[in-house]
Amino acid sequence: MQRVIDLVEHNLFGQARARLLEMNPVDIAHFLEDLSLEKSLMLFRLLSKDSAASVFSYMSPEQQKYVVVNITDREIRSILDELRFDDTIDFLEEMPANFVKKVLKNADENTRRLLNQFLNYPENSAGSLMTIEFVDLKKEMTVKDALKRIKKTGLDKETIDTCYVIDNERKLEGIVTIRRIILSEEDDLVGNIMETNITYVYTLDDQEDVAAKFIKYDLMSMPVVDNENRLVGIITVDDILDIIEEEATEDFQIMAGIAPVEDKYLKTSVLTLAKHRVGWLLILMISATFTANIVQRFEDVLQSSVLLAAFIPMLMDTGGNAGSQSSTLVIRGIALGDIESDDLPKIIVKEMLVGIVVGLALAGTNLLRLYLQGVSLPIAVTVCISLFFTVLLAKVVGGMLPMIAKRFNVDPAIMASPLITTIVDAAALTIYFTIASSLIL
Amino acid sequence: MQRVIDLVEHNLFGQARARLLEMNPVDIAHFLEDLSLEKSLMLFRLLSKDSAASVFSYMSPEQQKYVVVNITDREIRSILDELRFDDTIDFLEEMPANFVKKVLKNADENTRRLLNQFLNYPENSAGSLMTIEFVDLKKEMTVKDALKRIKKTGLDKETIDTCYVIDNERKLEGIVTIRRIILSEEDDLVGNIMETNITYVYTLDDQEDVAAKFIKYDLMSMPVVDNENRLVGIITVDDILDIIEEEATEDFQIMAGIAPVEDKYLKTSVLTLAKHRVGWLLILMISATFTANIVQRFEDVLQSSVLLAAFIPMLMDTGGNAGSQSSTLVIRGIALGDIESDDLPKIIVKEMLVGIVVGLALAGTNLLRLYLQGVSLPIAVTVCISLFFTVLLAKVVGGMLPMIAKRFNVDPAIMASPLITTIVDAAALTIYFTIASSLIL
Repeated sequence: MQRVIDLVEHNLFGQARARLLEMNPVDIAHFLEDLSLEKSLMLFRLLSKDSAASVFSYMSPEQQKYVVVNITDREIRSILDELRFDDTIDFLEEMPANFVKKVLKNADENTRRLLNQFLNYPENSAGSLMTIEFVDLKKEMTVKDALKRIKKTGLDKETIDTCYVIDNERKLEGIVTIRRIILSEEDDLVGNIMETNITYVYTLDDQEDVAAKFIKYDLMSMPVVDNENRLVGIITVDDILDIIEEEATEDFQIMAGIAPVEDKYLKTSVLTLAKHRVGWLLILMISATFTANIVQRFEDVLQSSVLLAAFIPMLMDTGGNAGSQSSTLVIRGIALGDIESDDLPKIIVKEMLVGIVVGLALAGTNLLRLYLQGVSLPIAVTVCISLFFTVLLAKVVGGMLPMIAKRFNVDPAIMASPLITTIVDAAALTIYFTIASSLIL
Repeated sequence: MQRVIDLVEHNLFGQARARLLEMNPVDIAHFLEDLSLEKSLMLFRLLSKDSAASVFSYMSPEQQKYVVVNITDREIRSILDELRFDDTIDFLEEMPANFVKKVLKNADENTRRLLNQFLNYPENSAGSLMTIEFVDLKKEMTVKDALKRIKKTGLDKETIDTCYVIDNERKLEGIVTIRRIILSEEDDLVGNIMETNITYVYTLDDQEDVAAKFIKYDLMSMPVVDNENRLVGIITVDDILDIIEEEATEDFQIMAGIAPVEDKYLKTSVLTLAKHRVGWLLILMISATFTANIVQRFEDVLQSSVLLAAFIPMLMDTGGNAGSQSSTLVIRGIALGDIESDDLPKIIVKEMLVGIVVGLALAGTNLLRLYLQGVSLPIAVTVCISLFFTVLLAKVVGGMLPMIAKRFNVDPAIMASPLITTIVDAAALTIYFTIASSLIL
């Protein structure tokens, strides 16, 4: 890699090109990202036509934009000709409206209609993930006919591993794998070797549900149909890998109280990072007014035994951690489809029991520790009873809130540690000072 | 589904069977999981031979175990005959040693040797994910020969979409897709149409790295070679989908301070759940002794202004949340390969700048709020200055710790909110009371 950079530095573009062409397009795209925009454009223009399209599809949107505004219309058209249909859509979705218009103007009638249709599918829908580059067959074809059709049209297709059998209204009737075709006799009918028990999705289905189906049924590709069951596209598993990672990343961010950022961390500006984080911090900080009020309400208890303040951090942290353990397991269980809405009672019972076991273990250990440190008995008992109930409550609240969010169609990930910490804090302090009032005052 | 359950309840197994056979094996396996073990076994024995093997591969380990101890040796052998090689390995890995011995005894010499070899690959290695059911070709073959070989051997293979070209020592020389074969002329040589720029992994590579390669290069399958570059197996993308989900789930759990649990939440017992959570809670609770000591050390400040205690929760929560935002982004960035070890300086600078922006916004808002609430100026200023430095520190610590963990080959996910909260708490309290001492006393 360093070698290629050296060659570029010394303006030995011919040799750099020769080296680049030995590399995987993914690696070329990554490599170009690390160069200055000017240098990367120079190298990009040296690539062969099909290699350029492939490399282009792996570039970041900002680099794609820089490339297309700096190359000729002819070069743009030649890239778009070679680009896979779904990569074209991905690219156009990230471009400014006036650029998209320009591209659509240059496309032929049929392509324009299709591009317009696909650009209109909502982001994160099955429609926005699919490609039209699949092989369609008819039931009446023989295996020999089918192979002939695959040979004729297969070169431009995203996959030929699975072919789709449709009727004259383009309604999906079955699927047949290339393996089945190859292993069948030449005069077998497609209608007789196709599978009719098909897993499919609708254009407007959410990408998360689509990914879940891929995982559940171990699929390599899946047909997408419209409301009249007409086949409009297919989704391939390579796009699903990205979706699964994206969805997990989004959940990680939401659970940490961050408004989701799509760009990579190192590529995101300080201001954007700050903007995406400050919102939840502000909300949580202001809602902590409650906790301040609770402490103020019990100022007399605190005044009579300032030592009580020393255990506030431990109590709150343990409660927060206990709650976020529960909410994390439940949120992830919901995301993976292991936990359904009607499991709420089971979860409450389970968390209550776990809370009792864990609460007893923690309170017991803590009592021993405080005793060894010579803390007076009333305070030690107050701390440990509060600890037990805080953990119990944190577990139940942590388990319940994501389920309630799900029932109201709110993303369960929002009910993660920051929010639960705030709720549990208020409860923990109230329990703590109430017990303290009766045991110490 | 309800219908099938009714049929089973009324012992109408014949009709239930007919319905089951229309279902996808994945759904049959899920359905059987919900029945009593006895009922599910009865239904399972009614399935056809190949359907039984397929359903078996989707069952949970405990149900697989129940099935194999309750069916005859002949039935076991018939399932194992039909089971894919990698599913057999997955199943045997979960079974007790004496059962595995029994199976190995019943297998022929060659299978036994292979099973033994595969069972010895470490868990989570590429070797433990791979299958031997691939098509191998030779460079000298024509496309016609290759197709003949695929037709002859393809039926038992996991995939024929990609075929692997090896030499006489089984060294990997290239790969060729079925698409390329079909679209080529009958007398083209495999050696001339194969790709030689291959992405592959070694048997002992970690499954996380394998998954990362699949995602980076949009692969459908990948060859696995030994140290001498001999092809020993292939990994297909369907297994990678599961790995990605598993790895994300593990990170979610570790980041919430839970020792990873592999089973589904609802299937895990209360005691197991408690055991996996109590460890970190205990460690964190005991390390909170520091915070208690810090507060005690400043008892005189606190005595002179008990109101100070009211802002401890807000300060600690905001610090903890700010820190976990940073650590989450960095941990996820490392997991996705976006952040490398040598990015540490960039991260420190970035988090410092984000910390200043966010800290100013929060401290400013808070000052306004405290002023409106009529809190005395020295206390308000103490709270806000502490808030600013706490947020700044939390951001930098949150960004740094996962990077340091990575450098020492510790899982960065451990450096998540619970641990960072504890560290930030101690720092926040020290800052708070030190400022308070000089401004208020």
